[in-house]
Amino acid sequence: MSKANPGNFFEDFRLGQVIQHATPRTITAGDVALYNALYGPRFAVQSSDEFARGLGFPHAPADDLLVFHVVFGKTVPDISLNAVANLGYADFRFLKPVYPGDTLTATSEIIGLKENSSRKTGVVYVRSRGRNQHRQDVIEFVRWVMVRKRDEGAAAPGDQVPRLPDAVEAASLGVACPVLRMDAYDFALAGSTARLADYKPGERIDHVDGITVEEAEHQLATRLYQNNARIHFDAFNAAQSRFGKRLIYGGVVISLARALSFNGLANAFQVAGINGGRHVAPLFAGGTVFAWSQVLARAELSGRTDVGAMRLRTVATKDRPCADFPYKSGKDYDPAVILDLDYWVLIPR
Amino acid sequence: MSKANPGNFFEDFRLGQVIQHATPRTITAGDVALYNALYGPRFAVQSSDEFARGLGFPHAPADDLLVFHVVFGKTVPDISLNAVANLGYADFRFLKPVYPGDTLTATSEIIGLKENSSRKTGVVYVRSRGRNQHRQDVIEFVRWVMVRKRDEGAAAPGDQVPRLPDAVEAASLGVACPVLRMDAYDFALAGSTARLADYKPGERIDHVDGITVEEAEHQLATRLYQNNARIHFDAFNAAQSRFGKRLIYGGVVISLARALSFNGLANAFQVAGINGGRHVAPLFAGGTVFAWSQVLARAELSGRTDVGAMRLRTVATKDRPCADFPYKSGKDYDPAVILDLDYWVLIPR
Amino acid sequence: MSKANPGNFFEDFRLGQVIQHATPRTITAGDVALYNALYGPRFAVQSSDEFARGLGFPHAPADDLLVFHVVFGKTVPDISLNAVANLGYADFRFLKPVYPGDTLTATSEIIGLKENSSRKTGVVYVRSRGRNQHRQDVIEFVRWVMVRKRDEGAAAPGDQVPRLPDAVEAASLGVACPVLRMDAYDFALAGSTARLADYKPGERIDHVDGITVEEAEHQLATRLYQNNARIHFDAFNAAQSRFGKRLIYGGVVISLARALSFNGLANAFQVAGINGGRHVAPLFAGGTVFAWSQVLARAELSGRTDVGAMRLRTVATKDRPCADFPYKSGKDYDPAVILDLDYWVLIPR
Repeated sequence: MSKANPGNFFEDFRLGQVIQHATPRTITAGDVALYNALYGPRFAVQSSDEFARGLGFPHAPADDLLVFHVVFGKTVPDISLNAVANLGYADFRFLKPVYPGDTLTATSEIIGLKENSSRKTGVVYVRSRGRNQHRQDVIEFVRWVMVRKRDEGAAAPGDQVPRLPDAVEAASLGVACPVLRMDAYDFALAGSTARLADYKPGERIDHVDGITVEEAEHQLATRLYQNNARIHFDAFNAAQSRFGKRLIYGGVVISLARALSFNGLANAFQVAGINGGRHVAPLFAGGTVFAWSQVLARAELSGRTDVGAMRLRTVATKDRPCADFPYKSGKDYDPAVILDLDYWVLIPR
Repeated sequence: MSKANPGNFFEDFRLGQVIQHATPRTITAGDVALYNALYGPRFAVQSSDEFARGLGFPHAPADDLLVFHVVFGKTVPDISLNAVANLGYADFRFLKPVYPGDTLTATSEIIGLKENSSRKTGVVYVRSRGRNQHRQDVIEFVRWVMVRKRDEGAAAPGDQVPRLPDAVEAASLGVACPVLRMDAYDFALAGSTARLADYKPGERIDHVDGITVEEAEHQLATRLYQNNARIHFDAFNAAQSRFGKRLIYGGVVISLARALSFNGLANAFQVAGINGGRHVAPLFAGGTVFAWSQVLARAELSGRTDVGAMRLRTVATKDRPCADFPYKSGKDYDPAVILDLDYWVLIPR
Repeated sequence: MSKANPGNFFEDFRLGQVIQHATPRTITAGDVALYNALYGPRFAVQSSDEFARGLGFPHAPADDLLVFHVVFGKTVPDISLNAVANLGYADFRFLKPVYPGDTLTATSEIIGLKENSSRKTGVVYVRSRGRNQHRQDVIEFVRWVMVRKRDEGAAAPGDQVPRLPDAVEAASLGVACPVLRMDAYDFALAGSTARLADYKPGERIDHVDGITVEEAEHQLATRLYQNNARIHFDAFNAAQSRFGKRLIYGGVVISLARALSFNGLANAFQVAGINGGRHVAPLFAGGTVFAWSQVLARAELSGRTDVGAMRLRTVATKDRPCADFPYKSGKDYDPAVILDLDYWVLIPR
């Protein structure tokens, strides 16, 4: 009986398999403080119990992306310990707010498997769910990762690519946000007067600021999420990897881009869903992250007059300010782009 | 409508203008833990709920300087995003204790404006106030900063330098400290037997220890305070600044000097007011901070026999131990000095 | 009266002397979050209030080693500020669980003193105790340190080496663990199905993963514990030390080895006692820590059917994966070994 977990290889997965991930985790005010110190978000709802209570939350919810990172971290030992790359996200929805004191567990279902032509790797599609102590789903997302085979000669465990929606339907958004008392929403305290109607589809916003990431910072973040992917912490083995150094967990880039986006999107207080996301290029310590966003669409939420949804593309770059909105030339990304994220936020109407 | 905040330039300010700053912030046990990890303070009142309760606090108050940093951080996007230098502090008082769970907001009033002769910059004097969820002021301070003009040709928005007191009057001190049951004050647990009467005006104390600051540390600190001054986090743009690298937020130096001062001032458990402070020289990552203090004065607090006030000058240096109390030669500071802080502490009588 | 604490030198100690250490400390959820971020432990009992409550704890206890570090930190200003080396641990027992909200104080008794033949240093043996706010002992351990003399000519303060047990008796273990409802122990959530009976004496387990330590990380850790040993933070003076650089607090290595050991020992949820421990070589920033363990023995706990004790040797190395279990060749340690720890854990039967 081998006691240490070698992680699953491509041929270990089965279509329809459901995996209960280890290590339940209670989210605390300590996690929230570390999240703040690591990324510097300034959205009022997550920052202030008073502000949140005024609107109708019991108190300030945890940042949506902290919830994501914790749930994602739980999936790593079973899903992506032998991953070559995290390829994408889809059908990603936040379903319930999470508050300090809540305890999260995670499960994943294998919904697709596709061996690569090299026969050295395959793509695993998983639908992961995070659940609170009341057995309520708080987050659900699909991701697909390229995973090594243990044995090139092993038979492929399946050959099915799941159909995934191009975008989360607007009709399904907002379930993680109680109906808010908008007369209590203080736009001066929130940092901007811009509401949903002030953003026009097509509009682009440079978030101006940049944040440099140090090795200690991304290591602290990744361990906080109990994500044990060794490429993030183990400089000794990373020196022999294709990067030659430690790779920053992609979730750090998502959280930095989201925190930077406050400068221009101060009232977009909740991430409601992620339509698709791609880590276009890796980030390493010493790099400075910048970001810009484009408004893709606006949507009303059925029966709600308090908040609406806004679809955004947020692009993060490395060592490249975004005043001229770097993105693609033709099909190729600008070499500075590291993240291309298409998602929905909630914002006061 | 520009969505991203470019910050105010000198000509944007008006005398008497009052600014409500964004992002209310609930202080938590997580913030306190990070404060401890960043600076290593050891004052018993802030470290132990039991010690604090024994004296008459409901439980351990947050470190005074954590409160300062959070309130200061809120003022940055409106006051000093385009600052060249933070010039000084005056009339700085702590008015109520802050406990984990309290939510802070901040406002600033423009009390002085003075264009520099270059016409490229001007000095802005602001009185900033931090308030808790009960609308009680918890801190108040004046600072003045040199701010760039957007347009050299713009008219000066005013020409008034406020009168500021040389020192906070002793009679106004102590309001943030409840009357304490001093029979419960355990001097062994607090780390020293020295009370107010044991310190003589003129006495100098070398705090002996030194603390080196890493990039990750000061970045975590500054983001924790939601201070978005880019020079502290953005190595890419900092490389083109006059420093050529990231500058450590001056508040980090104040907190380090205060934490170091425990070794010699263990019973000086509360900062009651700051008479004046000057960041004499910048600090960069890799520098080691040392400190020494001189007793400037002692004062009784009207009607109180539990604690008295002691006026101190604490001097912090960079890469220079302080056994010989480096300060000034003539009018010039010793080149190692980075902070000159004149303040009042409370200490058992 | 010197206000700053120069620390005790060898000749300042007396046999039988009992020292009350300074700075009581309330453990909070913030400390727990930082502990998680610094080391990445994944043991379910400490990670989840729900998991812990199901078993019979009131909620998740703090990591045993966090308790150790906090108590150890308190002893430093009085015991080891002038230490040359921390030589060993013995008779080290955890006596009560510690929960966020508990306040710890520490005392030490001098139980042995032995001058070295050089007359420049001596070995001080201390029994340290950590106590909670109910005056219950939560931890007790003996350590011995080599401490400098202030004056080589001073008389030795004693010449007595205490008798110390080779190992903590199994009969004394488990007092810090309530009797658990094992039907509620979810092995899938805990991360492994391996129970006490699945581990065979002599069995060796490679914990596979490695963690690199940055300067910022170990400094944050050591300050969090209010451990003021200057060699850990003060790069300026460390440059003139025999190491030429900052030395990582040995407790960081113990915590990393324990966290790494989750991969192979997922159900070994509590450290019950430490029989002996040796910091074989120093660790510096940039080093990557790996670990492996050997099962030394198993023991039943009198009258308990829920958990048993397992005696382990965990060996940590620097920049050296442990697939081949590096340890000693003859009497000499493999040059990569930095920690040799012999201890008891509790694990479900």
